[in-house]
Amino acid sequence: MLVRLEEEKVFKDPVHRSIYVQDAAIWRLIDTPEFQRLRRIRQLGTSYLTFHGAEHSRFSHSLGVYEIARRIISQFDRGGYAGWTEEEKLLGLCAALLHDVGHGPFSHSLERVFGTSHEHWTCAIITGDTAIRRVLEEVSPDFPERIVSVIRKTGAHPIIVNLVSSQLDADRMDYLLRDAYFAGVHYGTFDLDRILRVLRPHEGRIVVKESGMHAVEDYLLSRYQMYWQVYFHPVTRSSEILLRLIFRRAHELYREGYRFGFLLPPLRQLFEGTLDVAGYLALDEAMVQTAFAQWMSEKDALLADLCRRFLHRRLYQYSMFEERDDAWVEELRREWARIGLDPRYHLEMDEPADSPYDVYRPEEAPEGGGKPPILILDGRGRLTEISAKSDIIRSIAGIRRGNFYLYYPEELVRLHAGRLSPEFRRRLGL
Amino acid sequence: MLVRLEEEKVFKDPVHRSIYVQDAAIWRLIDTPEFQRLRRIRQLGTSYLTFHGAEHSRFSHSLGVYEIARRIISQFDRGGYAGWTEEEKLLGLCAALLHDVGHGPFSHSLERVFGTSHEHWTCAIITGDTAIRRVLEEVSPDFPERIVSVIRKTGAHPIIVNLVSSQLDADRMDYLLRDAYFAGVHYGTFDLDRILRVLRPHEGRIVVKESGMHAVEDYLLSRYQMYWQVYFHPVTRSSEILLRLIFRRAHELYREGYRFGFLLPPLRQLFEGTLDVAGYLALDEAMVQTAFAQWMSEKDALLADLCRRFLHRRLYQYSMFEERDDAWVEELRREWARIGLDPRYHLEMDEPADSPYDVYRPEEAPEGGGKPPILILDGRGRLTEISAKSDIIRSIAGIRRGNFYLYYPEELVRLHAGRLSPEFRRRLGL
Amino acid sequence: MLVRLEEEKVFKDPVHRSIYVQDAAIWRLIDTPEFQRLRRIRQLGTSYLTFHGAEHSRFSHSLGVYEIARRIISQFDRGGYAGWTEEEKLLGLCAALLHDVGHGPFSHSLERVFGTSHEHWTCAIITGDTAIRRVLEEVSPDFPERIVSVIRKTGAHPIIVNLVSSQLDADRMDYLLRDAYFAGVHYGTFDLDRILRVLRPHEGRIVVKESGMHAVEDYLLSRYQMYWQVYFHPVTRSSEILLRLIFRRAHELYREGYRFGFLLPPLRQLFEGTLDVAGYLALDEAMVQTAFAQWMSEKDALLADLCRRFLHRRLYQYSMFEERDDAWVEELRREWARIGLDPRYHLEMDEPADSPYDVYRPEEAPEGGGKPPILILDGRGRLTEISAKSDIIRSIAGIRRGNFYLYYPEELVRLHAGRLSPEFRRRLGL
Amino acid sequence: MLVRLEEEKVFKDPVHRSIYVQDAAIWRLIDTPEFQRLRRIRQLGTSYLTFHGAEHSRFSHSLGVYEIARRIISQFDRGGYAGWTEEEKLLGLCAALLHDVGHGPFSHSLERVFGTSHEHWTCAIITGDTAIRRVLEEVSPDFPERIVSVIRKTGAHPIIVNLVSSQLDADRMDYLLRDAYFAGVHYGTFDLDRILRVLRPHEGRIVVKESGMHAVEDYLLSRYQMYWQVYFHPVTRSSEILLRLIFRRAHELYREGYRFGFLLPPLRQLFEGTLDVAGYLALDEAMVQTAFAQWMSEKDALLADLCRRFLHRRLYQYSMFEERDDAWVEELRREWARIGLDPRYHLEMDEPADSPYDVYRPEEAPEGGGKPPILILDGRGRLTEISAKSDIIRSIAGIRRGNFYLYYPEELVRLHAGRLSPEFRRRLGL
Repeated sequence: MLVRLEEEKVFKDPVHRSIYVQDAAIWRLIDTPEFQRLRRIRQLGTSYLTFHGAEHSRFSHSLGVYEIARRIISQFDRGGYAGWTEEEKLLGLCAALLHDVGHGPFSHSLERVFGTSHEHWTCAIITGDTAIRRVLEEVSPDFPERIVSVIRKTGAHPIIVNLVSSQLDADRMDYLLRDAYFAGVHYGTFDLDRILRVLRPHEGRIVVKESGMHAVEDYLLSRYQMYWQVYFHPVTRSSEILLRLIFRRAHELYREGYRFGFLLPPLRQLFEGTLDVAGYLALDEAMVQTAFAQWMSEKDALLADLCRRFLHRRLYQYSMFEERDDAWVEELRREWARIGLDPRYHLEMDEPADSPYDVYRPEEAPEGGGKPPILILDGRGRLTEISAKSDIIRSIAGIRRGNFYLYYPEELVRLHAGRLSPEFRRRLGL
Repeated sequence: MLVRLEEEKVFKDPVHRSIYVQDAAIWRLIDTPEFQRLRRIRQLGTSYLTFHGAEHSRFSHSLGVYEIARRIISQFDRGGYAGWTEEEKLLGLCAALLHDVGHGPFSHSLERVFGTSHEHWTCAIITGDTAIRRVLEEVSPDFPERIVSVIRKTGAHPIIVNLVSSQLDADRMDYLLRDAYFAGVHYGTFDLDRILRVLRPHEGRIVVKESGMHAVEDYLLSRYQMYWQVYFHPVTRSSEILLRLIFRRAHELYREGYRFGFLLPPLRQLFEGTLDVAGYLALDEAMVQTAFAQWMSEKDALLADLCRRFLHRRLYQYSMFEERDDAWVEELRREWARIGLDPRYHLEMDEPADSPYDVYRPEEAPEGGGKPPILILDGRGRLTEISAKSDIIRSIAGIRRGNFYLYYPEELVRLHAGRLSPEFRRRLGL
Repeated sequence: MLVRLEEEKVFKDPVHRSIYVQDAAIWRLIDTPEFQRLRRIRQLGTSYLTFHGAEHSRFSHSLGVYEIARRIISQFDRGGYAGWTEEEKLLGLCAALLHDVGHGPFSHSLERVFGTSHEHWTCAIITGDTAIRRVLEEVSPDFPERIVSVIRKTGAHPIIVNLVSSQLDADRMDYLLRDAYFAGVHYGTFDLDRILRVLRPHEGRIVVKESGMHAVEDYLLSRYQMYWQVYFHPVTRSSEILLRLIFRRAHELYREGYRFGFLLPPLRQLFEGTLDVAGYLALDEAMVQTAFAQWMSEKDALLADLCRRFLHRRLYQYSMFEERDDAWVEELRREWARIGLDPRYHLEMDEPADSPYDVYRPEEAPEGGGKPPILILDGRGRLTEISAKSDIIRSIAGIRRGNFYLYYPEELVRLHAGRLSPEFRRRLGL
Repeated sequence: MLVRLEEEKVFKDPVHRSIYVQDAAIWRLIDTPEFQRLRRIRQLGTSYLTFHGAEHSRFSHSLGVYEIARRIISQFDRGGYAGWTEEEKLLGLCAALLHDVGHGPFSHSLERVFGTSHEHWTCAIITGDTAIRRVLEEVSPDFPERIVSVIRKTGAHPIIVNLVSSQLDADRMDYLLRDAYFAGVHYGTFDLDRILRVLRPHEGRIVVKESGMHAVEDYLLSRYQMYWQVYFHPVTRSSEILLRLIFRRAHELYREGYRFGFLLPPLRQLFEGTLDVAGYLALDEAMVQTAFAQWMSEKDALLADLCRRFLHRRLYQYSMFEERDDAWVEELRREWARIGLDPRYHLEMDEPADSPYDVYRPEEAPEGGGKPPILILDGRGRLTEISAKSDIIRSIAGIRRGNFYLYYPEELVRLHAGRLSPEFRRRLGL
């Protein structure tokens, strides 16, 4: 059942100025404990250790994605688009609002160590024994499943999938603007109003009117700059590596039967691989930080050191290399062991990679996969893939790989540096 | 010993664009565990529950205060001011950076329940067994004490006290701009550049050149609007009241010998009144939120309910009154008890008050107290208190008191509302 | 006949980001020579001589007023308001767009010297032999007259009059934001989105929902600051005085039969008082500036000097006084004459006055006049005049009068200052 | 003689917030009639006909270039750079301030028709019988000549030339930011503060510290977008073409002995090729627009029509082609003549071209020419040309050529379109 609020509700938002809620279901979803929990999960994980302003949460991002989706739908309405029912529009709005509800504390590092997946948890929360599911079922009994199918991109509504997950979706548009605003950089800014204005529903998907091509160029350039200047910033990567090492060490200790001085049930479940929805929902950044704070006093010196480093921001140093050289890293690991460092915890490699835009090449795409391209609609109704029209997008589409980095505890390495061979010292810049 | 960094360090800041660090001592202070801890204390306490963007920390505010102090000092330098030594300038910068280092989690509520004072803790941290003290002592052995004397306003350097604590100080200028930026309102914006440009050192204090009077008016109007639109927002006050009730209940239970399912040492010390510097430093918002999350499962139903309300944002409702009526509130408490509500936990009153500007009236000021007024320096070298010159400041200086509010758990009250007398129902708007 | 454009047209605007045109009539009005002429009339007259960025034209302001009116109407539509027909809405939009079309070059000075009135010319252009009238007549034959009645506030549509001319109308909202943006000050900024959101149609007029009172306070404070910091800036007033003196001198010379070296027909008509619509439309700032440039070579030394001063920005200096003293100014004029200065051209007085908000006092209002007050609509449907609710508005509503200024050619006065009595020298600060 | 102002003067600027003047010479230069004249020359020529906010003048841009140069110099000072004397610094500031002083009304079109050059006039004004020269000579007798040598890039101060004219100079940085601000687009925004912070004086030129490479990328991308979205906007080009046709027609008529109804001396000199400095200085946009307004009534129907089109914004329509095809255009001209249109005035071609960044290739450069590349300075003191380091700059450096456009009076062409062959109609999209 679709219920409109009698008077629309408004959230003040720094990025979109105002966020408007008109549907009772949206209002009640925001009010669930599971959605409120997103206030305790930072949007950018450890980036606040590089850009001190970037302390914003997934709560505000989720509202922002919802708002952009709402504006797109409302503009298609004004343009007379009749391709979706009221319920389908609400489906798009709910999917936009909830698409990140399964993110956990410091998701990227957590997922890498424990093999969890925030998409999996998003779907589990939507269909589990949660307030969210109950709100959605009041719309219609199969509404939770339909949202899951949008999130899994298996839905029968490709245009709704487009809205929340494509190369030009509400998610990306919000996070670029929001992360730039809070980090205090201007790389992520582009003309959202203009982009929204040139989107068109067309044969079951969202395309871009030709006159808006330059605004889309600008958006892709912003994305490129944000990836390389903010998301892949080596200091941020260094703190993510610390997180990863902490989780790895704690997990290892747990499996070895180590008795922790402090361990709350959800963390125990995490280590055991027995997390259920309730346990996952109890995991938030407050709990993780509290655990780290307590672990600074653990008997295991390695774990205690890693936690202290994270909380006191004593990050690993990095050396940058233009090319990756696996054989040499292998040698370096042996050298590390030789001089008394732990190659598993005192050396991490990182090689961030991203493409500003994926030209769609069906022949290269994995089965059913590949990100659909951005299509330009010209005055005669023809669609063209954007890189065929735009010099600048064609130019940058191939750029994908950054430098290669090694991270290590600098003061510890320097302590032993006298025993390192000169060649290693030189290459590490020590 | 004063040591300059070889190359200045820069923090990207959303409010000031860049924050420049030139002194080794500042750089090392920022790097201490005690200062890094400010990343885990929100600048605006519970305001993020009203303005979802306001999730910024005291860390970023402290850097901002430092930067404004640095700009004022640097401008006085350019203007040829020779009234302070290099060491005194560093004293001002350190005091600006550290003035909030003693803030704890949700300070206002905490202080109200436990009688602590963040100023006390600031001084204790600066002079205690901390990394901060060690960095400061390297400047000179009495440097920690001198900073404390600036913070306590007992120092021999009134102009430095002016810099960090007056009606037009670096602290206020930063928080108005920063809180407005993150909350996404524009009330707090004023022309910082212009104000900095019209400040002048004059006979041992900081005054305002006459041509800048209007910029100061604008700043005071911003302050007025921020207080009433943001800081005193009833939804924020409601969440502060919940915090206060949680602390009050937990404290009460502790004194009654209740056995908590979850209680970390710093919280126990807090309840016992035996907090030392180390314990206080371990208290951060992550720990408090983790405790609340665990307490949702406490046997004490009241504590569990209050914690659930806070974490799930089920705040108390409010009724607003133009005048405070203590006798009636007393009656209401009795009525509350009569119908089965707990007058100590189910009814709180609040009466926010602030003046945009305090005209200095020595005859009214408590001994040695009263905030010094903002002085305008005219072309002939005469000083005038600003409200004597500015119509608008004179007009608003007297505005001080807002409405009177009662907070209560609405659904619970409505449950019993049938037994409330019609007169109470009417006045509460139920 | 109401015709919608097939695809809406968009103007990029620095203040509103985008300006949307959906009606064919609006699109065609913008395209008329009379409306395009507004590109050659600056919005702020001589303010660009004080704030160099303030070079924007009445063209961009007129589009902005239209856009705000459009947003208000569209929001009332969304809220389900049915109190006006489609044609009445278009009436409001056209009146908003055209309300300033009768402004001439440097209107304020021109009007003061020649007794013209831009409102008169606006109406004359709308109903005269112009492209504007022809476009309007295609909507309906009496459309030009109906727009005139809105502009003259005699219309049968008080809510439309409210939209374009009240204390909280589209005109004021646009000019405060726009003038602040171009001047580069931030005084004029307020939260337009929020204000638009809290406007409500109510019993034939536009009122403000109670929750929006603070946004309106902020708007009135902005207005106050803009008046005193920008519009009444003494340097701007000084250049307006020069303009006035130039027009006065040229007019005087013309009446005396002086033969100008350069005089285009519209200027001649202006001097003769025989301007018709075609002549008035030919008068733009380019022509006036060209005349001034040519008049720098006139035989009349006074006119040539005044024109040189204006074009080369050699403005009159000013002395400021807290109180006006007419008797003393009279004495000063005689003194001026005594020492060889021209009291009619070498001394002007100025006393800017404005109130940030006019409380409506029917007993004081001229018949049928007085600006209607801003009304606040509370949750129970009651209307209250805003100053009865807002401390700050009540405080500032009475502030009206600024200082008193005398303007004169400083270097000329200094040349003769030796012969001025010491008392005059002292009071003028020479 | 170098004279410092007693108190620095400040201009409020929308782009840089404040512009600071500390040298008496700068203050007095701004005050000259020749510099004040820049208020009557628009920075972006006819762009205001496309972006209505872009009405700003060369006056504000010139102040902005000065301010950026001042900040660079002041930062080099703070960094301890001793490579230039006080007088050389003032030389840089004056050159920055004055580099555009020779711009005339609608320079690009004017220069193209009459073969004038604003650089020539800049030098002529600086060394001619002007107030500017007199101010400069008071610094030192050869100061005017030295500024000319900086502007002509023949000076003995390559670093000063770098400051005001290179691929990363104060001029470009200001105009990108300023034009974006006034046009209301965001393409031109980049992080000026950050760029200024990473500039370094190095071996007689200005280079970029490696950590700032991404900020420079962002600046070059902004430049790219501004060129294609703003400067080369076809509507702007269309109005420039009209201007060019007006000048061409008037010039032609003059040479044919046509007697103009309105012609002021500087325009006559322009047509005769006898403009001197005084005449050139009298030419401003007010005079040109006044002439156009008067020429709307000329007997020559073509000139009258072109002027009406310009003032009433009835621009030529355009057809866009991916490739230039000169042979076909030649045919089209003949076709134009055949059906009664004037191929010299009713058809213009345009092919805008620009490169976002010129890789320096000495072998391709004209003698002594070619724009010097942007150099990156790494931590070991090595210089590398930026495109060798930056993927994205390398990718876009080659993009240079846009589409090909034909402009024509659409309604006139449509009138005769029946007689056009179908092939021409199709290719023109009629």
